[in-house]
Parts: sequence; C-alpha cells; structure tokens
Amino acid sequence: MSRKDVVAGIRNEEGISTVLDLLKQSFGERFQTGQSFREQHAHTTTYLPAQLPDGVVFVESAEDVKTVVRTCAQHKVPMVPFGVGSSLEGQVNAAHGGISIDFTRMDKVLEVNAEDLDCTVQPGVTREALNTYLRDTGLFFPIDPGANASIGGMASTRASGTNAVRYGTMKDNVMALTVVTANGEEIRTAHRARKSSAGYDLTRLFVGAEGTLGVITSITLKLQGIPEKIGGGVCAFADVKSACDAVIMTIQMGIPVARIELLDAMQVRACNAYSNLSLPERPTLFLEFHGTEQTVALQAQQFAAIAEEYGAEDLRFTSDPQERAQLWKARHNAYWAGRALAPELAGLSTDVCVPISKLAECVAETQADIAETGLLAPIVGHVGDGNFHLLILFDDKDAENVDKVEAFMARLNERALAMDGTCTGEHGVGQGKMSYLEAELGGALDVMRQVKRGLDPDNLFNPGKIFRL
Amino acid sequence: MSRKDVVAGIRNEEGISTVLDLLKQSFGERFQTGQSFREQHAHTTTYLPAQLPDGVVFVESAEDVKTVVRTCAQHKVPMVPFGVGSSLEGQVNAAHGGISIDFTRMDKVLEVNAEDLDCTVQPGVTREALNTYLRDTGLFFPIDPGANASIGGMASTRASGTNAVRYGTMKDNVMALTVVTANGEEIRTAHRARKSSAGYDLTRLFVGAEGTLGVITSITLKLQGIPEKIGGGVCAFADVKSACDAVIMTIQMGIPVARIELLDAMQVRACNAYSNLSLPERPTLFLEFHGTEQTVALQAQQFAAIAEEYGAEDLRFTSDPQERAQLWKARHNAYWAGRALAPELAGLSTDVCVPISKLAECVAETQADIAETGLLAPIVGHVGDGNFHLLILFDDKDAENVDKVEAFMARLNERALAMDGTCTGEHGVGQGKMSYLEAELGGALDVMRQVKRGLDPDNLFNPGKIFRL
Repeated sequence: MSRKDVVAGIRNEEGISTVLDLLKQSFGERFQTGQSFREQHAHTTTYLPAQLPDGVVFVESAEDVKTVVRTCAQHKVPMVPFGVGSSLEGQVNAAHGGISIDFTRMDKVLEVNAEDLDCTVQPGVTREALNTYLRDTGLFFPIDPGANASIGGMASTRASGTNAVRYGTMKDNVMALTVVTANGEEIRTAHRARKSSAGYDLTRLFVGAEGTLGVITSITLKLQGIPEKIGGGVCAFADVKSACDAVIMTIQMGIPVARIELLDAMQVRACNAYSNLSLPERPTLFLEFHGTEQTVALQAQQFAAIAEEYGAEDLRFTSDPQERAQLWKARHNAYWAGRALAPELAGLSTDVCVPISKLAECVAETQADIAETGLLAPIVGHVGDGNFHLLILFDDKDAENVDKVEAFMARLNERALAMDGTCTGEHGVGQGKMSYLEAELGGALDVMRQVKRGLDPDNLFNPGKIFRL
Repeated sequence: MSRKDVVAGIRNEEGISTVLDLLKQSFGERFQTGQSFREQHAHTTTYLPAQLPDGVVFVESAEDVKTVVRTCAQHKVPMVPFGVGSSLEGQVNAAHGGISIDFTRMDKVLEVNAEDLDCTVQPGVTREALNTYLRDTGLFFPIDPGANASIGGMASTRASGTNAVRYGTMKDNVMALTVVTANGEEIRTAHRARKSSAGYDLTRLFVGAEGTLGVITSITLKLQGIPEKIGGGVCAFADVKSACDAVIMTIQMGIPVARIELLDAMQVRACNAYSNLSLPERPTLFLEFHGTEQTVALQAQQFAAIAEEYGAEDLRFTSDPQERAQLWKARHNAYWAGRALAPELAGLSTDVCVPISKLAECVAETQADIAETGLLAPIVGHVGDGNFHLLILFDDKDAENVDKVEAFMARLNERALAMDGTCTGEHGVGQGKMSYLEAELGGALDVMRQVKRGLDPDNLFNPGKIFRL
C-alpha cells in the first residue's frame, strides 16, 4: 500500500455540475451532496487519504441504477458503487470525482431456492442479514470476510475469509450476476445451472473487478446446508514453522477443515490482554470442523494426530456451541485486540497470499522484518489458503513513520511475489496495491486494460483503481 | 445444434497464401498442408460439416506459438488451437480458413508441486497421461470428461464430467495460465497462491473461451490426494423422478459423492446388450464415494437410506476395486453401448444443464419428446450437477431426419432455458450452440463481443465460434 498511488484524476467539472442537477431532479431527497454524506462515502478504513464523490445517490432498484448510469454516461461523469464501505485498499475513493452509488436501500433477498441451494439478492444485503434471513431454511451463506460487508462489495473485491479453505471464495460462490453496463442496459451473466460452458465467464469477470466494468444489481449465490454439528479446536505450537507444517499436512491429507486460522505470538498476547484470556503466548491454530457428529469427531481426531506430530501443546477441542465460542473468542476479537495494543496509533490491515509450502518461510521472514524494522504488527492468517494479514500499528501523521511502513510493505509484497504468491489474497487492489499488481502480473495488465476499454470506453466505472489506463 | 450455424467466413486468400509460405520456412516438416492432415484437424466428432484449415503447425514450445501468432497476426490469418480433437460442437472447424495449431508435441508436465497440490503442464498433455505421470506422487487430477482430452482443450471448453459434483469443473481447477495474446506476447494470468484478489480474473476469462481470445501455452492445475478408499454403488429406481429425487436429497444433505450418474432405461438396455449384463432395465444411478474406509462406508450408508426412501431396488455397494469396475462397467461403456443400438446410424452427443430441482421434470419431458418424435436417444446424466447428455442416433444423410433432430434439439434447449438452465453444461458453444446461447444470454453477448474486440481486434483467434461478431 502506498499513499502515492492515491492520485487525483482529471475532473470533468462541467459534466459533474450538469449531473448534480439532473440527479437532484430525478432522485430528490435520495440524492445528497452534503459534506457529511460525501465524506462518509469516501472513508477508506485505512491511512489512504479520502477522495470525496461530488454526490451520493441512494438507489432502490435496477431501474434507478440504469438512470444513474445513463445520466453519468451521457455527461461523462465517473460512478463509484458503495456497499458498506468496509473495503481496505481505497476502492470507494472517487479519484476523478463523480457520483457514489449507495446500495444500502437495495437490501432485499429476492429469491431463495432451497432445493437448489441457491438464492438471489440485491447488492446491499449484508452477509449477516442474509444469514439471518436464511436461518429457517436450514441453509447458510458461508463466506465470512470478518466485516459485515455487503454481498455486492464482497463480489466486487472477490472476498473470502476464514472458511474459504472449505467453501471457496466469492469466485466459487457467485453463480450469476445482473449488471448494468456502460450503455445503461442490464445484462444477466448466467442462469441457475450449477455448471455451464455457455460462452465467456462474465460472472467471474465482474467478480473481483472492483466496480470498474459495470454496476452489479443482483447476485445469485450458492448456499450450504447448516452443518448438523460444528466442532472447534485450539492448539499452540513451539514456532510458526511447526504450526504451518501442521496446516500443510492437514490440507494434504484432505481433512475438510472449515476454518484453520493462525495467530502469531504477538497477536495471542494482544488477545490475552484484550479478552482477559490466558492462552500460551505462542503461535496458535484455531480450527473449526463442520459435519455430522461422526465426521466432526473423525476430523478432530485426524487433526489431533497431526498436531501432536508437530509438537502441539494444549490441544483443546469441543463440539459444545458455548465452549466453542469461548475457545474462538481470541480469534473473533483479534482485530480489536490488535488495535488495543496501541489505541493511539492508526491500524493498517494488509494481506498477501503464498503457496502453502512457502507459508512458514513467508511468515517467519515477515516476523523477522517486523522486528528489524521495529514495527508493532500482529499476524493473523487464513493459513489453509496460504493467506495472512498484518495489522500494522503506526503513527500515520508522522511522514518518516509512513515511509518506514511503506518500505516494509513493499518488502512484504516482494517476498510474497518471489514465492509465487500474490499481493492480495482477498482485499483487492483498489489504489493501495496498484504498484504491486504491476510487479505481479506485468503484461497481463495490458489484457486487463483491453477488457476495461472494451467494456467502459469512457473510463467512468470507478476510475483510477486496479491499474492505470 | 444446427448445421446452419456452420457458416463459412470470409477468407483472406492473399494473407493465407503468404502465411503458408512463411510457416513452411519457419517450421519445415513441422508445418503440413496435405489434405489428410487438414481433414484430421477439422473432424468435428459430430454431423456438423468439417471446415478444413489451410495448414497445420506442430508447435513444440511457447516460442513456436509466438512465432505462429505473430506471423498470422501480421497477415491477418485466423488460428485454431487443436488438442486431440474431441470437442463436440465444431470448435476445431476453421470457419474462415487459416492455421490449425496442433499441441500434441507440447505434452510435457512442466512442474509438480506435491506439497502445494498443484502442477503445471503444457496444453497437449492428456488427462490420462497426466494421471499416469502423477501416479507415484499420491496425487491425481480429477476432471474426467470421458474422452482422453488434452488439458488445453479441456480448459478451453470449460470441461467437467462425472466427478464435477465433488471436484468442480475446469473453472475451479485451473489456477493460472500462460497465454499468447494477439500481439504475440506471452502473459501469465496468475501465480500459484490458492486464492487471489489481484485484478480481473483473466484465468477464468480464458477458461471456456474456446481459443477465441488467445492461445494457451501452459496450465497450472489443482491436484487432489488419491483417496485412501473408493467405494462404488449401483441402484435402480421405478422411474426417473424417484432417481432424481434421491439425487437432490443426496446433494442437499451434503453427502460428498464423488460421482452420481443416471442412466435412463433405454441406456441401461443398451448397456445390457453391449456388455452382456443383466441390470434391471429401469432408471439407474451409479455412485462413487471417495475417502477413508470410515468415511466411504458412512457415505454409502447415508446414501442407502436415501435411496431406500425413494424406492430403490437392488442397491449394490462395494469397496473392492475389481467389483467396483464390474459394477461401473455399464456406465463406462455407455457411449459405445449407445452407438451399438444402431451402429449404422450417426451418433450425436449433446448436453444441457438445469437446476437440480428441475432435473426430473426436464429428463421426463425430454423422454416424452423422444418418444413422440420417434427418436432413438438414450440419456446419461451427471445428475449431481443437473447436467445430462443425449446420444441421438439418426441418419445424418437424410435431410428430413436431420430437420427432425434439429427441431428436437431446439425444443430440448428451450426446455432447459425455460427452467433457468443452460444450453451447455460442459460441451461448450462452438458453432453448434450459437443460436441457443443467444436465447440464453441475450444482451450479455454484447459484452462478450466487447471483450473479444478488445483482445482480438482482427478476429483471428478461432473466428466464427460462440457468437457472431
């Protein structure tokens, strides 16, 4: 992440001014240009500077979205879709000014097909609201990125989280989309068949496009049966390598863990302090198993044998829901526990992802770098996927500190790329990771630009993100 | 499928003539223009008429591919990638003439990362060759479309097959590609991290693009551990509805079946005759379970309870490899058994896919249509995904018969689309399904065209496939 990637694009002042008038006429009170609305829609949840939109429109239907897109397209004014604003790399910044399209009022579950294990929702539905809605059906939507993000935002950043190791990411769980494209028409990328070879995979083209290719108006999702039984486990290891080796073995043996999370020693210390726990302050794995009574017990038993082989201590396991919540408390509160290590400092959350065989090496080298650089940066990892996060605590008002952190992040990304990894496992590129993406994919960015120019020739959909045109 | 979709495009005679000379100079004996080579590279495995390329180049490296692409691009001559020629919808036809790029000599496994459960292969590696190569590693590549297809071809048609219900399709199992694009440069779409949010999902854009956006030069695949134990099962049902209902329940309960295949009564009759078996001539499910001794037994037990609920008879189950091969014999020989019903007739294999809740209805209506139309068309289904195939046996020399079959196929596709399904679960669009794709996705085809024009402005990569520009 780097502040220098937050560049202000050229503003089409005349077009913007015209569009502000037109949207006010069309949407009345549902269009707002007040400072507080504009600020709220550009908060980047990071130290990246905010770039405010010129107005915020609260859409209530696909027809509204079409109206906005047509109006903006006609006057060449940029549009930035907005869910709940929990993205982490400046995705909602209005780099060229323009209109923020707020989806909080498009929050309906449109259809649940329980027999087919799917549902269709509007983009503003949050994952928690969806799961509340689904509760009586015996089904749930598994993707859990931590924040109570909107489904539209999760699709747009190709989000994943703790249980991607079992259920995949948004790429695997979005079956179809409707999208308003540059000409103001709504297209459907696919229907509800479980698989299809019918033409280009537009679904997965829009998933992860961060709103740069069109505006998503509905999402059809795969659902899962709520497991009959959920087991939880926690165990500490002597060092990160042993913990990671236990993870690799678990994955290789095909044990279908639902979650397998690593907290490093610094993070465990933070959690002990924050949640008044007394976990051993060593690298610790948190596990969750989904299945029947029998299969959960079997998975736990298989994992225990592996953990023991790698010298795990204090392995605790439970299938009692309350005890499990207690065991997992440290993990659930990890973010706030991390922040509480230094509440006066800013917190910057960043992620990389490497092949799991490289995970121990990548985490260990990163810890050494943290120590050498003198940073406060606990590590939490979705280690079953080779994905880990750092919460870097630092004084973002101090330029020297910012430089130090940015140099550290550059090294972190170089390290992950050198190990055949990626600069972002789940946060997306936004503005913060543009330069690393260039290093990661080089010439492929030209192909991305060709796609972008083909679908959005006037560069109006969330411009200034992912790559420079 | 319709013969009328096989349209001859405009040929660039001057460019073709120049390129024939240039490729002869560059590739010598590795470039062939003889009739038999040309015919062999346009066989469509269906009744669709062949459209021969003007020459066939046997590439041996990505450098060779770059040379071919640059030469053809300079003189605006089309290119058609060719694996083993097992595609079913005219994908290898050279609709505008041009050069067939044969990958049979790019058949190396480049890298196996056993710890990370991945490998990288050249496009000409066949799935059987890959699994033979992997045998000693304890890993396997699960996708099994029936034919011993090339991995490049499987990626390009987004292939799947019998065990997609457990392991997914090519979309889920290709991690990264290298591709030579229109400018003759090779790009890498991703690296080896298990997940990534790093920009547009170019991997899945090229998977299923049927060679229309660039030429794949290597494929990085996910691998699976060879199951400790494999169980097989067979059981017959009174009718298609009961069999499908048993499938729906199995999927809803989350039983991780590795394969769950339906043969309809006509297909079972064909198999009995062909393989000298005595299966009850009723709709029959063939199952496979992967896991440990314990989990396979558990899955079989769970399935048995469901099957019984839906009135299954003669449920047979085994975990002995030889007995399993015997049980599955009917399914393995289904295609040839079908052909043997009328060896003098042509066999046309077609597929559709619907949400599983609609499967029984779709199969039953299709059977009624077959009977009313007076066709010989046994049905085999990858029913866990809602995907089924018909092998239509007919006299393709008789115009009236062809019209009758084409009208039947139009109704089949309309039926699947009306049920929120797709015109192709796994064969792809090629030429044969173009008109159905139009009906299925409408305006989304304009977005596909924008992508195509962006990446291949001169329409040189496998032109005349998927959609008309």
